[in-house]
Amino acid sequence: MEDRVEISLLMDFYGSLLTEKQNDIMEWYYNDDLSLAEIAELNKTSRQAIHDLIKRCYKQLLSYESKLNLLQKSVKREKEIISFLDDLKSKYSINDEDIIKYKEKLENL
Amino acid sequence: MEDRVEISLLMDFYGSLLTEKQNDIMEWYYNDDLSLAEIAELNKTSRQAIHDLIKRCYKQLLSYESKLNLLQKSVKREKEIISFLDDLKSKYSINDEDIIKYKEKLENL
Repeated sequence: MEDRVEISLLMDFYGSLLTEKQNDIMEWYYNDDLSLAEIAELNKTSRQAIHDLIKRCYKQLLSYESKLNLLQKSVKREKEIISFLDDLKSKYSINDEDIIKYKEKLENL
Repeated sequence: MEDRVEISLLMDFYGSLLTEKQNDIMEWYYNDDLSLAEIAELNKTSRQAIHDLIKRCYKQLLSYESKLNLLQKSVKREKEIISFLDDLKSKYSINDEDIIKYKEKLENL
């Protein structure tokens, strides 16, 4: 279906906004690589019903991203952290060990 | 009704997830300080309907916060930025002008 890495990232940001059942099915399909038929059997429903649910959830995740932009912001933030640390290092004599420590700290802000 | 500062912050984070009409009414009530009666007149509806809508939106905002924690994370981030800059300043001789510049940069990450 869609790009698995993108969907996995969108799930990290917005999975909590889906229902538990939707979350389980998205995880099974995109992370655990179960087939539509296998998920359908687990849920005692049709392959088509699972396909529709996954499509609907994917659209929902895209809709959240279009409104909150959390994924886009996190990509932008990563670049800005690297540029900030480059500036800091070029102006002050920060040792490499600290740069690594600061990078980790800022990424977890 | 509820704490205006909290609601204003929740609106900053999650307002985009409300409908345009809900957004307008929350803005009029919490930021522009219009009364329920005034908003009801603008929307050709009852004071009670507006009251219910505002209450529903507030619950919706709290529900988003309970799932995504964007407000809580931003408060935590602010403290961590200050602590990070304190550490940086105590270890390296960063001038005050740069500390102010870095603080602004990190707050906008």
